[in-house]
Amino acid sequence: MVHPLRKHIESISKLTDEEFEHVLTHFTPVKYKKHTQLVREGDLVKQEYFVLKGCLRSYITDSTGKDFTYSFAAETWWVTEREAFTKHQPATTTVECLEDCELLALTHENRMKLGRDLWKYEHYVAEKTNLGYIALQKRLQLMITGSAKERFEQFVAQYPHLYNRVPKTMIASYLGVSRETLSRLYRK
Amino acid sequence: MVHPLRKHIESISKLTDEEFEHVLTHFTPVKYKKHTQLVREGDLVKQEYFVLKGCLRSYITDSTGKDFTYSFAAETWWVTEREAFTKHQPATTTVECLEDCELLALTHENRMKLGRDLWKYEHYVAEKTNLGYIALQKRLQLMITGSAKERFEQFVAQYPHLYNRVPKTMIASYLGVSRETLSRLYRK
Repeated sequence: MVHPLRKHIESISKLTDEEFEHVLTHFTPVKYKKHTQLVREGDLVKQEYFVLKGCLRSYITDSTGKDFTYSFAAETWWVTEREAFTKHQPATTTVECLEDCELLALTHENRMKLGRDLWKYEHYVAEKTNLGYIALQKRLQLMITGSAKERFEQFVAQYPHLYNRVPKTMIASYLGVSRETLSRLYRK
Repeated sequence: MVHPLRKHIESISKLTDEEFEHVLTHFTPVKYKKHTQLVREGDLVKQEYFVLKGCLRSYITDSTGKDFTYSFAAETWWVTEREAFTKHQPATTTVECLEDCELLALTHENRMKLGRDLWKYEHYVAEKTNLGYIALQKRLQLMITGSAKERFEQFVAQYPHLYNRVPKTMIASYLGVSRETLSRLYRK
């Protein structure tokens, strides 16, 4: 079986066996139990993670202590607190394991080294970040013009497996709808 | 004076004079009058643009014909309909010149060629796209948890020159607030 990370990179750049082995030596496998906070507000974030197994969410907490889920991650997704990781500044959001997780951790130093060692890795990052940007932009557009119903249908179509995997309150907050609206939409 | 494109690339990757000359040969200078639609819904989008002079907005149109501004661009920003440009599919949004514009156009083919010719260019794209992703994510977070007031203040702080340059109705739709709310916030 092709390694999930190799498959993900090769959706952009084909690698030789030697190249993939070189890439893989820069990652550290880590395991976290359900409910672990991978990143907490105020943390310096030294690593980004490729998800091999499990599911996570990222959330912001408002001044009243209420939390809002702004993204999910599951198998073959990348996750970190991206601003803190990129700019070497304390995290302003939290990343939490919703299940037991198996991840591959990559330090910022190794991310940069890999890009220098291997043009294909830099290209993979550039292309995948661009696709992520496009997905985020579409989500923003749907927040501006879409109804709750459209946002819900888009979410279920895009992430069919996530819908039954994560608590509905988190999906409601991700979609910017109330828990009651979500239940109503779900029953239809 | 350092060329604005060189300055922008060098915020990430220092270039030699020869490297920048090579980069520049891949761009075509273009001028568009105010009100020109640079990209229209349904267009194939062959180019992305670096803004030398002028101001543009990108908007989506809903089923009733109402338009919603989802982004602006001004000097030293990149602009295109990114999904159409990346995936070679028809545009679903419109990009319009709000002033007379001078742009540097780069075809998708030349974007890819530049990245292959020059590692530093690929790295510049990877890093700038990542920073764009972070900015978009913060905007989304503010849409979820921020009040109209917070969104307005953030916009003015981030883009002080844009506020007095583009029509207020467009800023209102960008912020997801009514024109009246925007006026009220502005008077304070």
